[in-house]
Amino acid sequence: MSNPVSIAILGATGAVGTELMELLESRNFPVSRLKLLASERSVGSTLTFKGEKLPVEAVQPSSFKGIDLVLASAGGSTSQVWAKTIVDAGAVMVDNSSAFRMEPDVPLIVPEINPEAAAHHRGIIANPNCTTILLGVAIYPLHRVQPIKRIVVSTYQSASGAGARAMEEVKVQSQAILDGKEPNPEIFPYPLAFNLFPHNSPLNAEGYCGEEMKMVKETRKIFNEPDLKITATCVRVPVLRAHSEAVNLEFTSPFAVTKAREILSEAPGVKLVEDWQQNYFPMPIDASGKDDVLVGRIRQDISHPNGLELWLCGDQIRKGAALNAVQIAELLIEKNWLKSAAAMAAVG
Amino acid sequence: MSNPVSIAILGATGAVGTELMELLESRNFPVSRLKLLASERSVGSTLTFKGEKLPVEAVQPSSFKGIDLVLASAGGSTSQVWAKTIVDAGAVMVDNSSAFRMEPDVPLIVPEINPEAAAHHRGIIANPNCTTILLGVAIYPLHRVQPIKRIVVSTYQSASGAGARAMEEVKVQSQAILDGKEPNPEIFPYPLAFNLFPHNSPLNAEGYCGEEMKMVKETRKIFNEPDLKITATCVRVPVLRAHSEAVNLEFTSPFAVTKAREILSEAPGVKLVEDWQQNYFPMPIDASGKDDVLVGRIRQDISHPNGLELWLCGDQIRKGAALNAVQIAELLIEKNWLKSAAAMAAVG
Repeated sequence: MSNPVSIAILGATGAVGTELMELLESRNFPVSRLKLLASERSVGSTLTFKGEKLPVEAVQPSSFKGIDLVLASAGGSTSQVWAKTIVDAGAVMVDNSSAFRMEPDVPLIVPEINPEAAAHHRGIIANPNCTTILLGVAIYPLHRVQPIKRIVVSTYQSASGAGARAMEEVKVQSQAILDGKEPNPEIFPYPLAFNLFPHNSPLNAEGYCGEEMKMVKETRKIFNEPDLKITATCVRVPVLRAHSEAVNLEFTSPFAVTKAREILSEAPGVKLVEDWQQNYFPMPIDASGKDDVLVGRIRQDISHPNGLELWLCGDQIRKGAALNAVQIAELLIEKNWLKSAAAMAAVG
Repeated sequence: MSNPVSIAILGATGAVGTELMELLESRNFPVSRLKLLASERSVGSTLTFKGEKLPVEAVQPSSFKGIDLVLASAGGSTSQVWAKTIVDAGAVMVDNSSAFRMEPDVPLIVPEINPEAAAHHRGIIANPNCTTILLGVAIYPLHRVQPIKRIVVSTYQSASGAGARAMEEVKVQSQAILDGKEPNPEIFPYPLAFNLFPHNSPLNAEGYCGEEMKMVKETRKIFNEPDLKITATCVRVPVLRAHSEAVNLEFTSPFAVTKAREILSEAPGVKLVEDWQQNYFPMPIDASGKDDVLVGRIRQDISHPNGLELWLCGDQIRKGAALNAVQIAELLIEKNWLKSAAAMAAVG
């Protein structure tokens, strides 16, 4: 890779922030300098990067001076507050929040799907929602060969999707129930231990929740298929880490299972996990901490001649968030696209 | 109700058996005599019915003499072993196993859907699979008004589906993981605590598992719609009791959400649970121990003009098994259909 870049992680102490640091280190990302930014609350703590203890700093207007790349994972409102400052400072923000994803001039990137869309940006590149990334990585290789007409997806989303504290809440609630006590919901609206519920994001007038509409709209944008038909039911399950999805695909004509299997066995970011003898298919505990989206149970839909069914699991924090962000950053460096519109204008 | 009947419960000590006793008592079922049958292993134990301690007896050929009705819930092989003996003794067997469900001369009954099909039998009435019952109760009222063309369903099945020992296994595994130990799968092939996996029933050549094909074939038989198009993905989740299902329905023409809501709010065995303000919908913990199938999140499918999406939870042990069996027994008594073919032949 080319010259090392100076990086700031905004939201360094969260579940995704921690994973970002691990990935920058394990993937030998060319880092000239790493700045860890968080809210006032976390100031004073340190995090280790390449054996070196780095202080967590409070984010402030001067934080982004001399920074080339900001990996933002501190929530939508924080991204919105700092986006202009970051871009004005000449840095590019790879944003893990939903704040800018649907803005027409913000590329929404999954490097395995639409890397070329990252070429033109105004300093902000958006990282899609976790369930969208996992779905896209698994089905785009099929769509490329033969267009998908309609997607019906049901998700099984782990607590990690709501952050490190939510994962802890499921453990605490589980222990309470095992001890014969009442579980106490704080992060989630209802007990999640030994229970499940439809995703607790705001509902629209049509009855779809925010998480479901992210899957619908973001998949259309990433695939560059504004009319792709998608419906989703998103559900929280008492799994700690890694999301699963039951996916029903309708193509414009029949899609042979053998062909789908062949395509996915060679697809980037996908690992085919199918042991039909052992009834062994993707499971969250096997997807946790892994880069690949695990795909299996590919079968001809017996209810539709042009249908395929498949099952996937992927690490929400990794490919569903941190890994995809780092891959976007690697893409920007490799293609020499790591220049914000503001920086280019300043040069020009 | 009419004259009290003498009842034997085959498999009295299991999760469903225990629930059958509770239901016979709480519903004031007209029981003249109750015989508790189980394998040799359980002999010596007692169970309480209406304040009286009843011994658990080992099942043997003479067990069914003088019995009018056998509620069988000891697994398919046990039902197969004893069916002829039961029928020859002049009793009717309401069988909770899958052994006879698809036999053409065995009625497969959900009293809310096809009670009339129970009129003609040869001594065996089959109780459908849990996921099938819950689905049927929720969607048949819509199908009756406007035919369903295709169903795409994903399940979220609790440990209770595999019996009382499986529920215990999930608790033991959860405690192990919380204590930092390795979970130890015994009943299930893989750890279920904080994990999930596609249903571990045998796979057919098309890649569908037994549980999925039960939903497909049994729904067609109960609805008396041999060509109904259904596809299912069945998944085990770390919930103790009550199954959930994400259901996508395609009708032959558009089905107004308001109409669906109105129909389901009055449908027998269904409780509409929808608080759109509080984002509160059916959850396993709310469905546990309840008779009704909880249905909610009814919405127009944005991917298909004739589609509806809905979400349901129901108690697998109760309506999914024991309650439905008791309701079948009540139906047989009420309609005076409690006479096996053998008994009728003997009389004739």
